[in-house]
Amino acid sequence: MPKPCLAITMGDPAGVGPETIVGAWPHAQVHAAARPFVVGHPAVIERAVRLLGLPVNVVTIESPTAAHPTPDCIPCLSAVGETAAEVPPALLDARGGQAAYEALLAAARLAIAGEIDGLVTAPLNKAALHLAGHVYPGHTELLAELCGVDDFAMMLYLGPGEPLRGPAGLGVVHTTLHMALADVFRHLTSEEIAAKARLADTFMRRMGVERPRVGVAALNPHAGEEGLFGNEERTIIEPAVRIAREQGIAATGPLPCDTLMVRARDGDFDAIVAMYHDQGHIALKLLGMHRAVNVTLGLPIVRTSVAHGTAFDKAWQGCAETSGMLEAIRVAALLARSRTSAAI
Amino acid sequence: MPKPCLAITMGDPAGVGPETIVGAWPHAQVHAAARPFVVGHPAVIERAVRLLGLPVNVVTIESPTAAHPTPDCIPCLSAVGETAAEVPPALLDARGGQAAYEALLAAARLAIAGEIDGLVTAPLNKAALHLAGHVYPGHTELLAELCGVDDFAMMLYLGPGEPLRGPAGLGVVHTTLHMALADVFRHLTSEEIAAKARLADTFMRRMGVERPRVGVAALNPHAGEEGLFGNEERTIIEPAVRIAREQGIAATGPLPCDTLMVRARDGDFDAIVAMYHDQGHIALKLLGMHRAVNVTLGLPIVRTSVAHGTAFDKAWQGCAETSGMLEAIRVAALLARSRTSAAI
Repeated sequence: MPKPCLAITMGDPAGVGPETIVGAWPHAQVHAAARPFVVGHPAVIERAVRLLGLPVNVVTIESPTAAHPTPDCIPCLSAVGETAAEVPPALLDARGGQAAYEALLAAARLAIAGEIDGLVTAPLNKAALHLAGHVYPGHTELLAELCGVDDFAMMLYLGPGEPLRGPAGLGVVHTTLHMALADVFRHLTSEEIAAKARLADTFMRRMGVERPRVGVAALNPHAGEEGLFGNEERTIIEPAVRIAREQGIAATGPLPCDTLMVRARDGDFDAIVAMYHDQGHIALKLLGMHRAVNVTLGLPIVRTSVAHGTAFDKAWQGCAETSGMLEAIRVAALLARSRTSAAI
Repeated sequence: MPKPCLAITMGDPAGVGPETIVGAWPHAQVHAAARPFVVGHPAVIERAVRLLGLPVNVVTIESPTAAHPTPDCIPCLSAVGETAAEVPPALLDARGGQAAYEALLAAARLAIAGEIDGLVTAPLNKAALHLAGHVYPGHTELLAELCGVDDFAMMLYLGPGEPLRGPAGLGVVHTTLHMALADVFRHLTSEEIAAKARLADTFMRRMGVERPRVGVAALNPHAGEEGLFGNEERTIIEPAVRIAREQGIAATGPLPCDTLMVRARDGDFDAIVAMYHDQGHIALKLLGMHRAVNVTLGLPIVRTSVAHGTAFDKAWQGCAETSGMLEAIRVAALLARSRTSAAI
C-alpha cells in the first residue's frame, strides 16, 4: 500500500496549531509514515516557519494530488478566506474561528469523498468558533454531523512507551464527555457503555492488538463497595460488560477507577471505558499530557488530533510542544493503513 | 525533643498489615525518626517475622513506657483477644475484624490520653470489621468518634520525590469520600470546601511549607466551561475559594481537575482539595500508589496509615510492599514533632 495521504488542518491561526505543524514537519518519521499536506492559509504557515526559523518552503497547492511533501517542503491547500492571515496571534478572534471551521470542512469533505486517507486536526478554539457563528462543542461533533453518524466517541490514546507497560499503548474511551457531572447519570445506559467497549475493541485491533483487554470503570468509589455507595455498577455497568462479552469482547469490570488506571498503566489492559470526562482525562494527562492523541471513533473516515487546545498563553512564542502532533500523525497513518470497510 | 513514641496497630491479622510492619521494622530510618511499638497480638507478629525470615525478636510489653525498640527488637503491646492468633491467613474472618478493632481502640486511647505521640495504622478489612459487629466505614470515622470530632477529613499524602517536583510532596484532601457519586452534589457546600482547604493548609505548614499553595478542583469537566457544563463552580466552589483566601490561605480555583493534577505534579501546588473520591485517588495512585500515606486531618491526635487495604490476595506470601508503611511512620513522626496545641 502506498503511504497514506493525510490532510493536516491548520486549526485556529491565533493558537499553537500552525507552529506545532511546522515544528513536527521536518521529522523523518512523519514522511516515512505518511504523505501529509496542510489545509489552511499559506501565509499563516509561512509565518510559523519564520517564527521557528526552519529551512522549510511552503508551496500552495490546488488539490491533494498535487501534494509532494518532503521534510523541507510543506504543500498547503489554500482552503480558507483571506481574513485568516489577518488574525492577530494569541487572541480570541471570530476570523480565527471561521478559518478553523473552513479548513476542517474542506479536509473532512476530501476524506468523505475518498480523496485522502485521513485527517489530523490542529486545535480550534471553541469560543472563537462560536463567535464565528458555528455552535458546536468541538471538532468531534462537527465531524460526526458531516459524516451523518450518531454512534461515535472520543478516545484519548497514548502510544506505547514510558510509563505504559502495554505493547500497544492505552486507549481511553469516554461514555459521556462534555456535560455537567450531574447530567452523567441519566446518560449512562448499558447499551451506550457496551457500544463504547465495542469502539475501543475495534480501535485497539486496528492498532495491532489481537484480542484487546478492555477494562470498564466503575462510576462510584470502590465500585460501589457491594452496593453500599451507589448501585449503578449492578444495574447498568455489570449488564454492559455482559453484553460486551457476549459480543466477543474481552471486557472486564466494573472496576474501581483508581486502581483500574494503575493496572492499565502497568499493562493489564489495552483500553479503558471511562464513565465520564475527568475519570479518563485525569489519568491520561498524568500518564502523558503532551503526547496524548484524540481519536474520533465511529466515523467512516480516519481522524486524529492533538489532545491539547489552542493554548493562547503559549501561542506564537515559538515554544509549542510538537510531540502531540507527531503522535497524531503517526496514529492517523496507522489507522489509515489498517482501514477496512468497517467504520472504526 | 525526644523521638516521638508511635503506636503501630497490627490491623487485620489476616491481611498484609503484620508483614508490612515487620518488613519495615529493620530500616534504620524508622528508628532514627521515632520510638515505635506495635499494638496487637505478639504471636501474629512473630508469625510475620518467621514468614519474612528476619533476625528480629518480638518482646511483649505492658505499657508504652516499657517499649525499647531497636531494628532487631519489636516491642508488642498485647491489646487484643487470644482469638486473633487463630485467624487464618488471607481470609475474611470476624475474629480478624475484632482484633483490628481492639488494637485500634487501645492505641487511640493511649494517644488521646497523651501517653504516646501518635499512631500509625495497618489496614483493617471493612467487611471483617462489620462481621465483628463494628459498623464503621473505616478507621477514620471510628477515630473521629473516639476523639469526639465532627470536622475531619481524609488526606492522601505523597512525600517529595519522583515524579513530584514540589519540595514538600503533595497532599490531596477530599471534600466528600465514601459515598455514591450521585450523593456528592448535596454534600458540597462552600463552607465544607473552605474547611478542607484550611485543613490542607494546616497540614502542609506542619510538613514544612511556609505558605502552602492550595489548588481547588472543579467539579465539572473544563471547570464547567463558563457555565456551559454545570454551575457548581460559580455557585459553590468560587465562593469557597473566596472564603479560604479571606482566611489567609493561598487557595486557587476552581481549576479543571485533569490539568490541575498535572500542575500539582509539576510543583505548582502543595495541596489539592478534591471534590470527590476518584478525582483525588486516580491522580494519587498513579503518582505513587505504594508510598502514598493516608492522614486523618482534624483530629487532636496524630494518625497516619498506609493507603492500601488488607490485600487478602497478596497477604502472608511474604511479598507485601513495605514502602507505604515506611512513609506512614515517617509522616507520623514529622507530624508529632511539629505538633502544637492546635488540631491538625
